[in-house]
Amino acid sequence: MKQKKEERFEDLSKMEEGASARVSRRNFLKSTGSAAALAGIAASGLVSSPVKAGATGLPTKWDEKVDVVVIGSGFAGLAAAIEAKNAGASVVVLEKMRVTGGNSSINGGAIAAAGSPLQTRQGIKDSADLMYKDMLEAGLGLNYPELARMVAEQSNEAVQWTMNSLGVEYKDALIPLGGHSVIRSYVTPNKSGSGIIKPMLTNLKKLGVEVRTKTYLEEIIRDKEGQVKGVKIQEGYRFPESNSGKVKYIEAKKAVIMATGGFGMDFAFRTVQDPRLTKDVESTNQPGATADGLIAALKVGATPVQLSWIQLGPWTSPDEKGFGMGVWFNILAACPSGIWVDPDTGKRFVNELADRKTRADAILKTGHPCISIADQQAVQEVGKLDEMLEKGLVKKFNTLGELASAYKIPLTPLQETVREYNSYVEAGKDKEFGKPLRKGSGPVALAPFYAMRSWPKVHHCMGGVQINTKAQVIGLNHKPIKGLYAAGEAAGGVHGACRLGSCATTDCIVFGRIAGKNAAAS
Amino acid sequence: MKQKKEERFEDLSKMEEGASARVSRRNFLKSTGSAAALAGIAASGLVSSPVKAGATGLPTKWDEKVDVVVIGSGFAGLAAAIEAKNAGASVVVLEKMRVTGGNSSINGGAIAAAGSPLQTRQGIKDSADLMYKDMLEAGLGLNYPELARMVAEQSNEAVQWTMNSLGVEYKDALIPLGGHSVIRSYVTPNKSGSGIIKPMLTNLKKLGVEVRTKTYLEEIIRDKEGQVKGVKIQEGYRFPESNSGKVKYIEAKKAVIMATGGFGMDFAFRTVQDPRLTKDVESTNQPGATADGLIAALKVGATPVQLSWIQLGPWTSPDEKGFGMGVWFNILAACPSGIWVDPDTGKRFVNELADRKTRADAILKTGHPCISIADQQAVQEVGKLDEMLEKGLVKKFNTLGELASAYKIPLTPLQETVREYNSYVEAGKDKEFGKPLRKGSGPVALAPFYAMRSWPKVHHCMGGVQINTKAQVIGLNHKPIKGLYAAGEAAGGVHGACRLGSCATTDCIVFGRIAGKNAAAS
Repeated sequence: MKQKKEERFEDLSKMEEGASARVSRRNFLKSTGSAAALAGIAASGLVSSPVKAGATGLPTKWDEKVDVVVIGSGFAGLAAAIEAKNAGASVVVLEKMRVTGGNSSINGGAIAAAGSPLQTRQGIKDSADLMYKDMLEAGLGLNYPELARMVAEQSNEAVQWTMNSLGVEYKDALIPLGGHSVIRSYVTPNKSGSGIIKPMLTNLKKLGVEVRTKTYLEEIIRDKEGQVKGVKIQEGYRFPESNSGKVKYIEAKKAVIMATGGFGMDFAFRTVQDPRLTKDVESTNQPGATADGLIAALKVGATPVQLSWIQLGPWTSPDEKGFGMGVWFNILAACPSGIWVDPDTGKRFVNELADRKTRADAILKTGHPCISIADQQAVQEVGKLDEMLEKGLVKKFNTLGELASAYKIPLTPLQETVREYNSYVEAGKDKEFGKPLRKGSGPVALAPFYAMRSWPKVHHCMGGVQINTKAQVIGLNHKPIKGLYAAGEAAGGVHGACRLGSCATTDCIVFGRIAGKNAAAS
Repeated sequence: MKQKKEERFEDLSKMEEGASARVSRRNFLKSTGSAAALAGIAASGLVSSPVKAGATGLPTKWDEKVDVVVIGSGFAGLAAAIEAKNAGASVVVLEKMRVTGGNSSINGGAIAAAGSPLQTRQGIKDSADLMYKDMLEAGLGLNYPELARMVAEQSNEAVQWTMNSLGVEYKDALIPLGGHSVIRSYVTPNKSGSGIIKPMLTNLKKLGVEVRTKTYLEEIIRDKEGQVKGVKIQEGYRFPESNSGKVKYIEAKKAVIMATGGFGMDFAFRTVQDPRLTKDVESTNQPGATADGLIAALKVGATPVQLSWIQLGPWTSPDEKGFGMGVWFNILAACPSGIWVDPDTGKRFVNELADRKTRADAILKTGHPCISIADQQAVQEVGKLDEMLEKGLVKKFNTLGELASAYKIPLTPLQETVREYNSYVEAGKDKEFGKPLRKGSGPVALAPFYAMRSWPKVHHCMGGVQINTKAQVIGLNHKPIKGLYAAGEAAGGVHGACRLGSCATTDCIVFGRIAGKNAAAS
């Protein structure tokens, strides 16, 4: 038994070694360390000599002027840019990476909406109140109630906007996701956020809004009254090399919008908030998910909110990099219509549709990856199953015995677990862990059986800068910082202790649109 | 049953109304709002015009010069001042309230030490490793390992220092506290932190170190290289009235030490981090436990750590203000040698010696105060029992039946609970919740019986500014801010998600001393 465990850990450590090499701690320290070089601003007036307090000043000359500067090109940034432009403002979107879209373009393409037409068609009763309740339950009540309510109430409108105004397409059937008490998530046909990002970019092109890549936000600039006036940037920036771009100053005549995402890949900053999340813990995020944007905002006095609540995705595979494709084996098959077992015991250990924190904590507590199991019937919905099988990510077995043998699971307890689970399915009630089951739907019965190892990865930063319902960034004096907005993962408080699946996309679209409209009107 | 619950809530809400009136949200907003008035610093050089970024500059003339300025007069601040002075530095301690000591002088006077002479005498085996392990278990692994280890390793030395160097006296017997796997906590004879604060003040007087009350830290001042040079203060400050004091500038030739405590009474700031903690939730803290010090540090670029982890004390009574005295009925009697029952069920619902978070969460989950019960034997150690009885805080009953009737607890389940619990005591093993029991010691058997209502209050802020093992404050660039130290509740990361009882005092003394020594040597 002991040896078995060590083997699993060995597999895992190999995988993680690769991940940490990809974006090394050294590089991140290098890039964040650049802040130290920003001293040297002389001051006069009431004070006799120079002060450096983490912010720079107005340049002698702006290189460029625009009404609204959007930092970040994910869902929130692009939604903000579209709405700001539609409201009559001139807009530019700045993205530090070579490619647009950030984490949004590699996410699962699911978006939650309460009270949608598709729910009506599928006979699902839902409401903004119920979605709000689900968000607060997962968030352990740490959510900002007014922000969570805004997301829930505008969720359906947000999805309809992506369809009607942007031409985004979704699959005809909603998908069930953990922690939601009803099925309410739309998903793009390619199960990727790129299915939303691309139409957004097309719309921005039509609107004549430039989205500049390789453009790094170095500092947010405020005037003497504390109003944000623009940004100091680097053009031609080569991530993650600090000072690799050419410095320019852009005046934001109306506002700057922070849509800079989370810091899931910023090993230095995330360990400050949660020391367990060293480089030994993988992430689903793209390499650009660093804390630079957050730090720039903190330097001009933005209030930090709940930074230590960092979400682990429970459904990832340790046998592939990043978010990967195995997630879909879990989300579409093993979680709703299969089981997760601890290979040491052959037993289930958690509600496979619980919120992410509950599931991730439960897996971590066992100390090793769990085995996700689904039968032939359940995998019908899994799109790229052949590719997963080819990669060895998911494995196929003719019998439970073969499956048990491959993962060194004790067979008798496993058989018993499957028998028990199927009896719960028959009764329509999970007596052990309370997973929502549809009577008679989805037993683990039809061979062949499919299995995958599952182990959590850092997925989402619930914390960020404080905002109000207008998406204004709130300063340490509890008042809005004039001319500064934030939306999406960059803002804290919407999701509390734990974000529900597919609510991030809704959050980004809802608050991105709010930020864009208000920035244009400011 | 329903009506009963409502009655309990009514009692509670009455109590809380009083609490919120005492320190109103309006006053706090007023006092923190002062930051908005600090604009107007003109800048020159690289930049063309004025910048306000949350920090002020060097004054044309310092009103006063001293090597080390200590902000705050609790355990950490006074320990720092003593060590800095002993190391040859000139020192001044600034306290914004009318009285010295902050929360330290109203705390329970307990201090944890691993491997102490008193443990040896009592035959208790302990080690720094075990204390470290306990701290990390309660902290859910969110603790900064190196900081927690420092506290555990220097815990015994810290206690011995208070005795041998400062003349602090402790009771002859250690007390058991929740979450500690062995008994390791010294306690002052008056069960109050004032038993430590007073000898500290006496020592400082002997050393010629001034402790100035009514002196408010308005800003920390840095030079152009980012080194902390001194502070802008208000003398004759009348808490909580902003700008009620006279502005002065003190140069800190060596360093400034932030020993500014937590923000448990700062309703505006604590709800930013945990929206549940509105003014409807009481606190054990003194009114001066506001976020001003923390905000001053954030304004000069200190890194915020785990601010959303705010501890609720599980053992307080809703029938008295603040920390109160009923806590001792729980700590000395009902927790180690009695039971907590849910009045709705008559059943125990938690290990009465679990860590604070586990216990507070368990009570909150029931939605109403629990009933703490101890017998005649158990209350022998409770010092001011008569006073508690007189105030009606603790009630005395000749039989369990009378007790059940008074709190509307169903009698049969309660009798069953007591029978079961006593059988666990006899066996030396709590089969239900795993509370550590000494075989045969402490059954609930000897009439009369005593009972108290228990309901959590905000007690401790685990988060604060980031420090390293030298007590240097770490900036957003992951490097120490030169000339700035922090210790005690003002610093984050030592205790992770949950601080164990009596570890705060150890933390304050250990890191206060480290800060004082290093500040003097800088």
